[in-house]
Amino acid sequence: MSHPLSDGERVLLVDAKRRRYLVTLKAGGEFHSHAGYVPHDDIIGGDEGATVLSTRGSRFVVLRPTLADFVLKMPRGAQVIYPKDLGPILMLADIGPGVRVLESGVGSGALSKAMLRAGASIVGYELRQDFADRARKNVAGFLGADVLERYRVEVRDCYEGIDEPAVDRVVLDLPEPWQVVGPAERALRPGGILVAYTPSIVQVSQLREALDRGPWSGVESLEVLQRTWHVEGAAVRPDHRMVAHTGFLTHARLLRP
Amino acid sequence: MSHPLSDGERVLLVDAKRRRYLVTLKAGGEFHSHAGYVPHDDIIGGDEGATVLSTRGSRFVVLRPTLADFVLKMPRGAQVIYPKDLGPILMLADIGPGVRVLESGVGSGALSKAMLRAGASIVGYELRQDFADRARKNVAGFLGADVLERYRVEVRDCYEGIDEPAVDRVVLDLPEPWQVVGPAERALRPGGILVAYTPSIVQVSQLREALDRGPWSGVESLEVLQRTWHVEGAAVRPDHRMVAHTGFLTHARLLRP
Amino acid sequence: MSHPLSDGERVLLVDAKRRRYLVTLKAGGEFHSHAGYVPHDDIIGGDEGATVLSTRGSRFVVLRPTLADFVLKMPRGAQVIYPKDLGPILMLADIGPGVRVLESGVGSGALSKAMLRAGASIVGYELRQDFADRARKNVAGFLGADVLERYRVEVRDCYEGIDEPAVDRVVLDLPEPWQVVGPAERALRPGGILVAYTPSIVQVSQLREALDRGPWSGVESLEVLQRTWHVEGAAVRPDHRMVAHTGFLTHARLLRP
Amino acid sequence: MSHPLSDGERVLLVDAKRRRYLVTLKAGGEFHSHAGYVPHDDIIGGDEGATVLSTRGSRFVVLRPTLADFVLKMPRGAQVIYPKDLGPILMLADIGPGVRVLESGVGSGALSKAMLRAGASIVGYELRQDFADRARKNVAGFLGADVLERYRVEVRDCYEGIDEPAVDRVVLDLPEPWQVVGPAERALRPGGILVAYTPSIVQVSQLREALDRGPWSGVESLEVLQRTWHVEGAAVRPDHRMVAHTGFLTHARLLRP
Repeated sequence: MSHPLSDGERVLLVDAKRRRYLVTLKAGGEFHSHAGYVPHDDIIGGDEGATVLSTRGSRFVVLRPTLADFVLKMPRGAQVIYPKDLGPILMLADIGPGVRVLESGVGSGALSKAMLRAGASIVGYELRQDFADRARKNVAGFLGADVLERYRVEVRDCYEGIDEPAVDRVVLDLPEPWQVVGPAERALRPGGILVAYTPSIVQVSQLREALDRGPWSGVESLEVLQRTWHVEGAAVRPDHRMVAHTGFLTHARLLRP
Repeated sequence: MSHPLSDGERVLLVDAKRRRYLVTLKAGGEFHSHAGYVPHDDIIGGDEGATVLSTRGSRFVVLRPTLADFVLKMPRGAQVIYPKDLGPILMLADIGPGVRVLESGVGSGALSKAMLRAGASIVGYELRQDFADRARKNVAGFLGADVLERYRVEVRDCYEGIDEPAVDRVVLDLPEPWQVVGPAERALRPGGILVAYTPSIVQVSQLREALDRGPWSGVESLEVLQRTWHVEGAAVRPDHRMVAHTGFLTHARLLRP
Repeated sequence: MSHPLSDGERVLLVDAKRRRYLVTLKAGGEFHSHAGYVPHDDIIGGDEGATVLSTRGSRFVVLRPTLADFVLKMPRGAQVIYPKDLGPILMLADIGPGVRVLESGVGSGALSKAMLRAGASIVGYELRQDFADRARKNVAGFLGADVLERYRVEVRDCYEGIDEPAVDRVVLDLPEPWQVVGPAERALRPGGILVAYTPSIVQVSQLREALDRGPWSGVESLEVLQRTWHVEGAAVRPDHRMVAHTGFLTHARLLRP
Repeated sequence: MSHPLSDGERVLLVDAKRRRYLVTLKAGGEFHSHAGYVPHDDIIGGDEGATVLSTRGSRFVVLRPTLADFVLKMPRGAQVIYPKDLGPILMLADIGPGVRVLESGVGSGALSKAMLRAGASIVGYELRQDFADRARKNVAGFLGADVLERYRVEVRDCYEGIDEPAVDRVVLDLPEPWQVVGPAERALRPGGILVAYTPSIVQVSQLREALDRGPWSGVESLEVLQRTWHVEGAAVRPDHRMVAHTGFLTHARLLRP
């Protein structure tokens, strides 16, 4: 992974105030900032971890984006699922190589990307054509075009049913996941896992009622919090502000009816 | 993944009180509980998600363990890193296929397993031979023996240096991670990531001092909390008790010196 | 407050394992433990903060109970409101000398005690005679019998209305606080405050709907968390377990209709 | 408490966006806003809970400030202790009528005000004359001038010792509370309580070391978190952002040496 940065690659430029810019390198291109510009040719052919100077002397660190960096900076329409929740979802949905996932909706593809990188094959149901297109583009932009062999997005409504047979996982980020519980019971193989991300506890409550009526085991709802710390000499304390909420995660395993 | 359960496979048996037992299936074997036993032959050849009965009528659900289930139930000596933290570490360390990781110590192999499944190649440094052996066994037991091609554990002290050249990640779960900051600066390629898990905030403080002296970027320390909810009709509330702490996570990216 | 401990007073005996016993001192009495007994006469006439020995050599520290100690150890029937929430309720309800409070239900009197000590006058509505009696006894036991001049408990159902005119506060710990919103609008003077404690978020939701229909200002719902720390040399970390939930607090101020 | 608003009283004006202004009423005075002004005479003689209109038609709700409102809006120099922590401190320090408190430093008087209202008598040690003056003014401004009989602020350094004999409580909000542990052991009566508020966990650690060397019982350190909720129809969720940290609270009771 230590090859030089090349034309066409995406990089992250980080300034002294920790502001981050996602840039696609292009021979002859320029990255313009408040303090002059950085010629892309100063970056192409170099290593990540390098520091480059803008024409007016501002310093930028050049790094290949992590998946989390990319999710926070990629073009997006809908609200994305944040990195804080992506890792826990990989664990709750038990994602690994060869796992076949039905995902709906795909939004801007943040969660798709995390699951695909972990080895899953995904069929995505997405209501909006523009979201489907962007998700595919974001996914290929980060993982390469080859990954599209494992990623098919269909423009359709998951509430109307799931046509994929015997999937291993159903992963939901849509307003009324309880409408998908019935279809998921038919689509999932026994032992398969359903995971749903919902902003409101009222959605959790309705989803849980639907799950309680079916052959589900180990049903659990939880929220994930990350608290960052300020660590500077003798001043060691949690940061004063934090993200207090994104969404609730509910997961369950399907039994044989 | 929907093939029948077979001789030699590990399964999870879950009773009505949600107690979970990890069992290795063996033709002719028996799983003994307070309420009689379950012949393994009642399970072998069947599907996961099935319910089996013990000789005295207790019901057990049969499931293939998720990685999280396996971590909580596998034989372990040292304290393991819990599933709550495994997902976030996968994101912070940005683990994906082909990523070369130096991990120390490996303990019982919980984190190794999560990173290997996500596609990493790992060289593990572990002080104790018995831990190294168990980690390998646990890893192969969950992911299959083939994974050992990407997993080498050496019995040695990481404080004395890292011999792997140009690794992509250094992932630490040991008492004095600040002793590894210098070795990590030499072992990591530019842009590489260090992640350390430490129970005490005093360790975080000492690690941060060491990182502040070197060419590191985006240094951050945080804690991950999961809060589960009780959802039953109109009784919708957080559970009364929760795990309030496991460890702090610190991560940083190496710049070109 | 530094007078000697006297016959009839309540004290807290704390053993080496931090177990706490609430004892009413009585000349000639004995406190019996696993390790022999402590004659009350060894305590009476002495100072708090002293250490006494049982007949078989166990050590007990003698302390006057704080209000929080008393709440946790006093005889109680219903679930009490814990000290973690009592302090915040005093602030949210803005309790001070001369403030007239309608409280319902009073349960075992934990919250009554905190508000009375802070100077409030309380009329309590309580459904059960036995709870009303115990609340009065607990309150007088901690604050002295004189406080009963400011504390009247009536056995009646708050859902059927409030007869007190122009109270300053309505403080609720009952299952359906939304049934009291109408009565509270008639009983509270303009600028008065309503505070409700409810275990379930569904109750919060229903209460908020009722408040949204009336002339209320500054309506807010919140939860209070306390996280204790383990601090011992270099081991400085949050305790591994914590109370994750007791109840939600909702407060609002009444405008002039 | 339901008397009309009078000349000289402080009131809170709350606009439609929940912005809050602390105003001292004065016959003939005017409150100026972006949308014209409100003559004080429109407020004086009326009830709290009323709505007044500015000359250009903006609506303001008039309320007497709660102690928490006042703390957030009063003139202040130093960082104040927030209402979130004031309630818990009242409980941990077990403040009630007649309790004699040594408080240092007093800052802008937020905590003094809460303890005085709860009935305590306070001697305050404060390094800066301007802070001492403002604290006294803020306290009298909220509780009335009579309270100054129970509130004496001296301009002196608490690290150099405490001259008050046999106080019931020592309440500390200063950078190095461990310097006051020795003086507190001499100043407190047996059974007395020390409470310290410190922003950094490193301060907690140093304070705990000092407490561990003396005759203290029930030593505990904790943090208090408040999480507010968004409750609007089916959208019921924690607010997206919260205050993640203010300070740590440490409390202990003095035994007889």
